Amino acid sequence: MLSVVVEHIFLLVLVTLISVLQNAFFATKVEREGKEHHANTSAFERVSCTNRNCMDSYPTFLAVMWCAGLCLNQAPAAFAGLVYLGARQKYFVGYMGQTSQSTPGFLFGKRVLSFLFLMCIVGIFNLLLVRCFGNDFKDTVETIATAASALLLIP
Amino acid sequence: MLSVVVEHIFLLVLVTLISVLQNAFFATKVEREGKEHHANTSAFERVSCTNRNCMDSYPTFLAVMWCAGLCLNQAPAAFAGLVYLGARQKYFVGYMGQTSQSTPGFLFGKRVLSFLFLMCIVGIFNLLLVRCFGNDFKDTVETIATAASALLLIP
Amino acid sequence: MLSVVVEHIFLLVLVTLISVLQNAFFATKVEREGKEHHANTSAFERVSCTNRNCMDSYPTFLAVMWCAGLCLNQAPAAFAGLVYLGARQKYFVGYMGQTSQSTPGFLFGKRVLSFLFLMCIVGIFNLLLVRCFGNDFKDTVETIATAASALLLIP
Repeated sequence: MLSVVVEHIFLLVLVTLISVLQNAFFATKVEREGKEHHANTSAFERVSCTNRNCMDSYPTFLAVMWCAGLCLNQAPAAFAGLVYLGARQKYFVGYMGQTSQSTPGFLFGKRVLSFLFLMCIVGIFNLLLVRCFGNDFKDTVETIATAASALLLIP
Repeated sequence: MLSVVVEHIFLLVLVTLISVLQNAFFATKVEREGKEHHANTSAFERVSCTNRNCMDSYPTFLAVMWCAGLCLNQAPAAFAGLVYLGARQKYFVGYMGQTSQSTPGFLFGKRVLSFLFLMCIVGIFNLLLVRCFGNDFKDTVETIATAASALLLIP
Repeated sequence: MLSVVVEHIFLLVLVTLISVLQNAFFATKVEREGKEHHANTSAFERVSCTNRNCMDSYPTFLAVMWCAGLCLNQAPAAFAGLVYLGARQKYFVGYMGQTSQSTPGFLFGKRVLSFLFLMCIVGIFNLLLVRCFGNDFKDTVETIATAASALLLIP
């Protein structure tokens, strides 16, 4: 019974696992920085702040990705999640490297999150349409979403 | 198959989307405050602290709302979620306005969260009752929950 | 319809509720410390920092526990969740008591999280195996997971 549901979410689970690994990587970096550089507190401050920024937007990201995956289709949602994780990695590593690069970063990965947000809205809209008129545009919409997710790769 | 499940959660998804929009609004406020008032750091500190308080309780809120919606019924859970988002908005805007109003705010929206919490417990209790005795009080309980959620509006 | 799904997750919901209660307990501690000891700011700083560490890893914990419970079986996942909550309680109380004990704590409960992580991977791997070969090792794997979760109690 439940395995039918799991078939529809296992890509989302995979991306969630990768994000957990990334969180662990970030936490390890912060921990090591805190231990090694007791004198150089500014480096620790910076890494810790970056980690905080990343963790602040983490629940939001998880919620939007899962909603998008459940409402419409898991494949484009999982792909967008991967792109987001890539952007986060780039943001974290870039932050660690140089002091000069002080992007506020509360809203990095804006494009990916907006895309997932749109997917949710389209999914719910589609559900209401199906209820009212009985026409199912879901296949069409899913194809468009999968194609549109490829656009996220354009920098 | 999955669309049957989605019918039972689309109100929860909608409230989640609204909360994500609110998060984005908070983050934008913090970002703008950080850029504009480099001299006036106390304002930035305050907004940033408020944002942190809001984000700290965000995963808790999401977890309780989804559990309540899944265990019992989505309509009262989504309504309580909306009331919580309203309280959060009021808290954030009030915090930004005046320095004097320094509510600790770790536990704002206590009443709504307690209500959602109760809904979860009632839902699980109901499930166990159904398993043991075969009586289904779910319809009665759902009606009571929907009626009780209107009580949340009383200030 | 949905009640069939709820049967498979109600243990996870229970553990989530317990974790929410713990969050409320932590927040109350921080609030009281902030009110009572205005002079003694170091104590407040410490409790607040501990609370932050706990809340930082909270979404990660929730995500891993739910994925493990959905992919494989809820009983060992919920048990591992309980063990994690116990470790968190011990960490928080120990942090409050003494200044000397300054464990970084970004990664407390590493063993439990790794176990849940492994459960997810095994669950997804099992799903793929079932798809390709049609053999269902799920019962065997679930038994092993339940037995392995008892190993978590060894300190």
